[in-house]
Amino acid sequence: MRAVVMRDRGLVVDEVPDPAPAPGQVLTRVLACGICGSDLHALAHGDRMVEMSRLSADPSMPITPEVMDLGRDVVMGHEFCCEVLEVGENVGNSKVGDVLVSIPLLFGPQGLSPLGYSNQAPGGYGELMLLSDVLSMKVPNGLDPHLAALTEPMAVGLHAVRKSTAAPGTSAVVLGCGPVGLAVIAALRLEGVEQIVAADFSPRRRALATTMGATEVVDPREEPPVAAWRRVDGRSRVVLFECVGVPGMLDQAILDAPRGAQIVVVGVCMEPDTIRPMVAVAKEVALQFVLGYDPTEFGETLRRIAEGELDVAPLVTGTVDLDGVPGAFQELADPEAHAKILVVPA
Amino acid sequence: MRAVVMRDRGLVVDEVPDPAPAPGQVLTRVLACGICGSDLHALAHGDRMVEMSRLSADPSMPITPEVMDLGRDVVMGHEFCCEVLEVGENVGNSKVGDVLVSIPLLFGPQGLSPLGYSNQAPGGYGELMLLSDVLSMKVPNGLDPHLAALTEPMAVGLHAVRKSTAAPGTSAVVLGCGPVGLAVIAALRLEGVEQIVAADFSPRRRALATTMGATEVVDPREEPPVAAWRRVDGRSRVVLFECVGVPGMLDQAILDAPRGAQIVVVGVCMEPDTIRPMVAVAKEVALQFVLGYDPTEFGETLRRIAEGELDVAPLVTGTVDLDGVPGAFQELADPEAHAKILVVPA
Repeated sequence: MRAVVMRDRGLVVDEVPDPAPAPGQVLTRVLACGICGSDLHALAHGDRMVEMSRLSADPSMPITPEVMDLGRDVVMGHEFCCEVLEVGENVGNSKVGDVLVSIPLLFGPQGLSPLGYSNQAPGGYGELMLLSDVLSMKVPNGLDPHLAALTEPMAVGLHAVRKSTAAPGTSAVVLGCGPVGLAVIAALRLEGVEQIVAADFSPRRRALATTMGATEVVDPREEPPVAAWRRVDGRSRVVLFECVGVPGMLDQAILDAPRGAQIVVVGVCMEPDTIRPMVAVAKEVALQFVLGYDPTEFGETLRRIAEGELDVAPLVTGTVDLDGVPGAFQELADPEAHAKILVVPA
Repeated sequence: MRAVVMRDRGLVVDEVPDPAPAPGQVLTRVLACGICGSDLHALAHGDRMVEMSRLSADPSMPITPEVMDLGRDVVMGHEFCCEVLEVGENVGNSKVGDVLVSIPLLFGPQGLSPLGYSNQAPGGYGELMLLSDVLSMKVPNGLDPHLAALTEPMAVGLHAVRKSTAAPGTSAVVLGCGPVGLAVIAALRLEGVEQIVAADFSPRRRALATTMGATEVVDPREEPPVAAWRRVDGRSRVVLFECVGVPGMLDQAILDAPRGAQIVVVGVCMEPDTIRPMVAVAKEVALQFVLGYDPTEFGETLRRIAEGELDVAPLVTGTVDLDGVPGAFQELADPEAHAKILVVPA
């Protein structure tokens, strides 16, 4: 099959072997796959990502996921929607022709592989991929597969909000309105948080933040986000969501946070980062680091999109075929140009 | 009166003006005052402490506490027990002869002063000090004032545990067994946490940890504390309490923590500190920074000590008069030598 391959720290479009389904797996055709900021990170700072994966392995877990080897080919892409072409042995849920999304993990004879960051199983930047039958969910309601592919990034937002203390009656400040921040804003709105202040340098991203449910948007060069929150609310309990993930953001959030605030760290900063713990101590702030989602949150996000509660169409700002992926990675560096670009291999 | 004065980044014993009670204040004689690790920090890194106090000021608070000026005299000491010598106007609770402890804050015409870190109000390293009537609590049950003086540091432990998710059925790992770690251990035990693993390089501190309620003690040079927890428990939910407060401890705690663990930061690291956020993200750890206590926790700690539920006598490893304070600051640098030294001015 054809696929976009991460090889020698670059992206090339090449022929790679067709995957074959093991028991419990289905072979699928990729209908659409979103390009995630983590993929841009992986291309630029893959070694750091691999090192961090090793450092964060938990020796008490029963199974250790595969950690990719950057010296070998990787087909990235973990925000996919696929159509089943062939079912392996012991597949009970899926059948040929089903349109599926899945948590990006593959169980198989090779162990547990993170789809999109694996040498053993290709991700969604290729024509074909394998899914685990037990982790896959059928796309309901005739939902457009291009929108279903946004289940994964939107589930990240729901999970972040559910792991936080944000709730009806509290307010939120969202730092950064890239896809992660926008997913958080949408989830906050659906979870009943009324006052949502969102901050981003980019006018286009601020406009998208408003579309997704932010009640106040600010350019942090003009007004510090927490000052904007004090201006429009300032009284209810506030949760800060850090969705940028570059060094210095955490320290600034701690410095700006009101006393007793929770800061939810959703943006993944891959570099070592410096904070001033004494400021955090003096304010008794709490930092909740979050990652991913659980299957329930993933399924609930799919249902919300399919039933029209969550309109993700405004987030899709571009579509490319496989040959267009290297260029799309370049374009995504400009926050004015794009939010989410979908890869459509066919 | 005579007092130990922090002046020109050193400690000198000198005559200073006797304080006089304003309305709502009482003039007291200091019976005993503990030397706190924060006082050692303040002497060594006072500028940093002042800078951090300014940085952590919350503009939404109705009153901003005084921030000490290191160019002027400061009488430190915030873990005190005092006897009332004279009452000011509008004093309703206290009378001459009462033995009191208090949260170390003084309300007065000058505003709100943190007792022990103020130019306007002397702390407990002097013969006399002022207390706010409304914040003071009478020492009950004939409790020895030398033990009552430990209310403040022990309340820090209770507050840290109450701000955490530690509870009966969970377990705890306490990193560092100085006075703060020992207070946390005692509070964990009283709050019904059964498995308490405590770590310190010092054999004497490990022995004190056992006395205060630790169920397992380790030298971190011989066994990582979380590995010790896995050995003796490893199954229940665990909360880590960071009670050392030097750079690098947080990053190591994040690296060692089991997935989903809460890390309660009780040790006050006054220097900028570097963490690897991606490891924290991958494990979804939560950092809860804590400081001080509320009046309820302070009062409950006093009651526990007075009623014999909490035996703090083993923590008092030395007593000095005012002239002995500079030497005691030196001695406290050696963890084998001391836990808590009390200053007894009389």
